[in-house]
Amino acid sequence: MKKTTIHDIARELNVTFSTVARALNDHPAISVATKAAVLETAKRLNYQQNKLASSLRSGRTNVIGIIVPSLDTSFFSSVVHGIEKVMNENGYSVLLYQTGESLTREQKGIETFLQSRVDGVLSSVSSETDGHEMYAQLRKRQVPLLFFDRAIQELPVPSVTINDYQGGFSATEHLIGQGFRRIAHITSDQNLTIFNERLRGYREALLKHGLPFQEDLVFRGRVSLELGKTSVQQLLAQGHSFDAVFAAEDYTAMGALQQLLENGIRVPKEVGVVGFANEAFGAFVTPSLSTVDQQTVKMGEETARLFLKLFGSKDYYGTNPEHIVLDPILIPRNSSQPVS
Amino acid sequence: MKKTTIHDIARELNVTFSTVARALNDHPAISVATKAAVLETAKRLNYQQNKLASSLRSGRTNVIGIIVPSLDTSFFSSVVHGIEKVMNENGYSVLLYQTGESLTREQKGIETFLQSRVDGVLSSVSSETDGHEMYAQLRKRQVPLLFFDRAIQELPVPSVTINDYQGGFSATEHLIGQGFRRIAHITSDQNLTIFNERLRGYREALLKHGLPFQEDLVFRGRVSLELGKTSVQQLLAQGHSFDAVFAAEDYTAMGALQQLLENGIRVPKEVGVVGFANEAFGAFVTPSLSTVDQQTVKMGEETARLFLKLFGSKDYYGTNPEHIVLDPILIPRNSSQPVS
Repeated sequence: MKKTTIHDIARELNVTFSTVARALNDHPAISVATKAAVLETAKRLNYQQNKLASSLRSGRTNVIGIIVPSLDTSFFSSVVHGIEKVMNENGYSVLLYQTGESLTREQKGIETFLQSRVDGVLSSVSSETDGHEMYAQLRKRQVPLLFFDRAIQELPVPSVTINDYQGGFSATEHLIGQGFRRIAHITSDQNLTIFNERLRGYREALLKHGLPFQEDLVFRGRVSLELGKTSVQQLLAQGHSFDAVFAAEDYTAMGALQQLLENGIRVPKEVGVVGFANEAFGAFVTPSLSTVDQQTVKMGEETARLFLKLFGSKDYYGTNPEHIVLDPILIPRNSSQPVS
Repeated sequence: MKKTTIHDIARELNVTFSTVARALNDHPAISVATKAAVLETAKRLNYQQNKLASSLRSGRTNVIGIIVPSLDTSFFSSVVHGIEKVMNENGYSVLLYQTGESLTREQKGIETFLQSRVDGVLSSVSSETDGHEMYAQLRKRQVPLLFFDRAIQELPVPSVTINDYQGGFSATEHLIGQGFRRIAHITSDQNLTIFNERLRGYREALLKHGLPFQEDLVFRGRVSLELGKTSVQQLLAQGHSFDAVFAAEDYTAMGALQQLLENGIRVPKEVGVVGFANEAFGAFVTPSLSTVDQQTVKMGEETARLFLKLFGSKDYYGTNPEHIVLDPILIPRNSSQPVS
């Protein structure tokens, strides 16, 4: 029996040789429907490829996958823009996957990226991520991986983060410098290094200035506008004496600010408020919200550059993993400055 | 010469049969590095596959690609959450690609999705998209495609949009109902149906209420905080008599509002302001910003459901393309209600 050739398939389907060849090589210019038809015909005619399908080649796809909790916040969308800028300039496409802070979806996202044959994965882990097993597996299998903002410290994987301790310290010291003494802190109840570090910065700033760290002035929950409101309600209901609020996230700070104003408490004259993340709305509200900027675009650019540098080297995981730590920048606005 | 088998490759690499088989089938659980090693060995030993690589099968990947201008805005990020919700419930993964309103990047995004073998593309076209050639090609090649929010009307492609004409009409009629008579309009200078329709709604509402449509009260540019500011500066510098501003987008409305306040003009007592899109910050600012809500989550859910319905049918493009049009909802807040 004569061996089936690409010409036979082309004749059978009344398409060109080139269409069949490209379909067999999974060329993106050929539609899924055409590929299906070519495949079906190839099978029926018992066609055997001489070379392995090019989709099995180990070649690069020039596509990078980014895992983020959510792009709702200015923070992540701005970091991602920074990554995209550098990646696009270097001829890479960037695909995004939102986990919604869910471990199951995070796992699904990584599988999807591997299935999509990305060259590497840039990830900011979800707050549900605990076992780290999934990332350890990626690392073990030599898939190029880089953490940004939220890293798993225990894994030997390169990362770009900000100094959250310093951010929490600066925000608290700024409030102290403005004359506030009894500073409440609202933070996440989830075990994320970024929030633990901001809390540590808050505590150390208090201690440095001879102020007590009071556990009953620390409120925890899922950071949100709602958490800010309920925390202030609790502060007031429990009769706590406090004159400032440092929230570890801007929406939470905004909720605190709104609740204070609703209770007729003047901000910043009676109570000072500082948030964290420099969300877009902070400059628009009244009083404008003091916050900590995380150099988002720079973080994105550094993330992309570090990845490209390592990816361009012979061995991605060859040396000790590089960790870039950026300094946050305090943005004092009206909500924390009674006299300005 | 004995024919090379998978066992030969496995022995050569000291890995399991299953690893080689899965590597040859491009299984996502196998690392890129292992696949490369398997491929290299397969080539060297002159291994010939009996069946076509499964990556060439026409089977579904259960991955959907979404093209959006940018996820910076509450609008798109909220629509995308709606899409993800329904898609995830139905076992699909969702990959995102931001075009930054650039035609080149949009093209790149579509190529990347095809290369990643998505089952379909959901797209909100960038403002630079003009020729529509690229989408016409997708349609022609039977790639499942669906437009949301920003559609190319001329193409026979299903879509989910909102009634932008109605949104522009309601916003303008609301201002007229509040006693405003000389209403300026700030809109995009880019040829996007959504903005053209909002402008048409503005014009028709004026005419319905016996008010003149004045071209010199219409300002055009790239919608942004900056455009809102400069438009109000021009209105004031040119000595135009106006008592309200309807901006076709919330950041633009916010810029107008800020500029009015900076010039000591009271909002809404002297000038009323209405935006469009119901961005998150609108409820936080002072005065709170009246706007038009686009039912974003619902739009996302309808988009996903329509796609799944068509994708589940035998022929995606079989019947006349379905177009779902959602009604926008006016959200009157303080910026447009002098007496409330």
